[in-house]
Amino acid sequence: MSMLNSKIDLQKCSLRKLAQVITLVENEEEGSKLFLENLKPLREVPVIGITGPPGAGKSTLINALIKEILKADKNLKGRGIAVVAIDPSSPFSQGALLGDRLRMSEWFVHPKVFIRSLASRGSLGGLSARTIETVDILRSAGFDFIFVETVGIGQSEVEIASLADVTVLVLVPESGDDIQAMKAGVMEIADVFVVNKSDREDASRLKNSIQSAAYASGHSIPEIVHTIATQQTGIAELLKVILEKKDKISDERSTSLLVQKALRIIQNNLIRSVDISMLTETIKKESSDPNFNIYRLAHHIGSKK
Amino acid sequence: MSMLNSKIDLQKCSLRKLAQVITLVENEEEGSKLFLENLKPLREVPVIGITGPPGAGKSTLINALIKEILKADKNLKGRGIAVVAIDPSSPFSQGALLGDRLRMSEWFVHPKVFIRSLASRGSLGGLSARTIETVDILRSAGFDFIFVETVGIGQSEVEIASLADVTVLVLVPESGDDIQAMKAGVMEIADVFVVNKSDREDASRLKNSIQSAAYASGHSIPEIVHTIATQQTGIAELLKVILEKKDKISDERSTSLLVQKALRIIQNNLIRSVDISMLTETIKKESSDPNFNIYRLAHHIGSKK
Repeated sequence: MSMLNSKIDLQKCSLRKLAQVITLVENEEEGSKLFLENLKPLREVPVIGITGPPGAGKSTLINALIKEILKADKNLKGRGIAVVAIDPSSPFSQGALLGDRLRMSEWFVHPKVFIRSLASRGSLGGLSARTIETVDILRSAGFDFIFVETVGIGQSEVEIASLADVTVLVLVPESGDDIQAMKAGVMEIADVFVVNKSDREDASRLKNSIQSAAYASGHSIPEIVHTIATQQTGIAELLKVILEKKDKISDERSTSLLVQKALRIIQNNLIRSVDISMLTETIKKESSDPNFNIYRLAHHIGSKK
Repeated sequence: MSMLNSKIDLQKCSLRKLAQVITLVENEEEGSKLFLENLKPLREVPVIGITGPPGAGKSTLINALIKEILKADKNLKGRGIAVVAIDPSSPFSQGALLGDRLRMSEWFVHPKVFIRSLASRGSLGGLSARTIETVDILRSAGFDFIFVETVGIGQSEVEIASLADVTVLVLVPESGDDIQAMKAGVMEIADVFVVNKSDREDASRLKNSIQSAAYASGHSIPEIVHTIATQQTGIAELLKVILEKKDKISDERSTSLLVQKALRIIQNNLIRSVDISMLTETIKKESSDPNFNIYRLAHHIGSKK
């Protein structure tokens, strides 16, 4: 019998059981589909995306936010805090787990903190499928806060923005170039900018860059919070700003998030239904034919679904 | 009558006509599907992905490579060089076009250089759909070299690696942190590492970081080329290394690239077939129902395709 029983009480089961459930769904074990179709994710739980370039201090910042949240009992009515760390390195290297994640290791045994690493590499569309599903399981499991951490400048923020209620872009004073390169793009994605390591030179220059990028692209001046995560400086302020943003999400934004999510799920379902080894065999056999055309092949496979 | 006639001779038509064709396909004008299904992309044309963090000098490097290629007539048997610059900023801001791309502006009127900007933001799955199609049109149009430039650290290299024959990751001496964060991930993606601005301090330290990251993840020592793109230093060597890599692509790698590509096309076809405004209306209407479940909705829509 399948271990994935849709009647599991996700709000009451142990963290260990919850971790198992996530693994079973990740591995697409029997019953996953039905399980997901019976989830009841709680909308009111804030899902907070934390993104930014390598070295900006994202893990340290989440660390500091966890500390801040745990300080006051009133913050925790439910299971506490869940962190989904999306690891862009190879699934078998565990690179980032041993490195960056080490900074979060003090929470590994804390009863109110649940940390889950997801490897994003190697599976087409896999990042979104597994991340979306994991977050929805966590949303159904009674956590008070869910953080999703991704490394990146470029495509990754777009992905996270379609998943998180509030997206926080973490930068360091030296990130001026990044802002330059992203221009209006970041303005549409980030709800909150964090200038971390703000005791360094150029912190105010970065703030100016962000403001002028907003101005130049016709956006209103965004929320910018200065932090020094290693010293807890600015963290209470950041938490306040994040929660205010979450409260102010418009209906339009909520709908648009759900549309994006539905499209990703549709995509992922389709990709999961393709027989990759058969596709590989077909391509091996046919691609040497001078008349081989991949659009025709894709059309043929897609139309059989 | 559709302007997209499958009988257009892409190898002989003007660059102006070619640009029009790309726009028509981008806009999914009538006839696009048939047009793509009749393309004959030339496999032997090297498609060279150039990626890396903002500020690493990707545009300057492409600039230098164009100069290097144009130096020798023997490099150009066909139409010359095409550059696809993927712009992560908002489609309406033209941010990067006015900034980074300005460095390439000397080529805008050169008869042997064709530059095309693609905005990647805002369209789910759109980056890959339009990029894949544009590259295939260029591959069918008799260019000698095709460069595809993306900004990013994170997801974007993965995208480009499934599209390019050879992926070049451009770093600067200060990028040590990036390598740290990416670990084995980059090793699987980048065929060639460029340490640009290699007259700066820490250039050799970065080389060591790359080598030890390779070692730690069990990969063979990758190709690392030192350049100073603004001075043409190392560019001839880089071009040589790129072309050698292209010549040595294994059958396995070719097949795997085609499989990735087919999957993306299947995904994109599906997404294009979804009626977004109807989906939005459905979500608006149903999402307030406490029993609303997005997986059920996605399953329902997907199964109707």
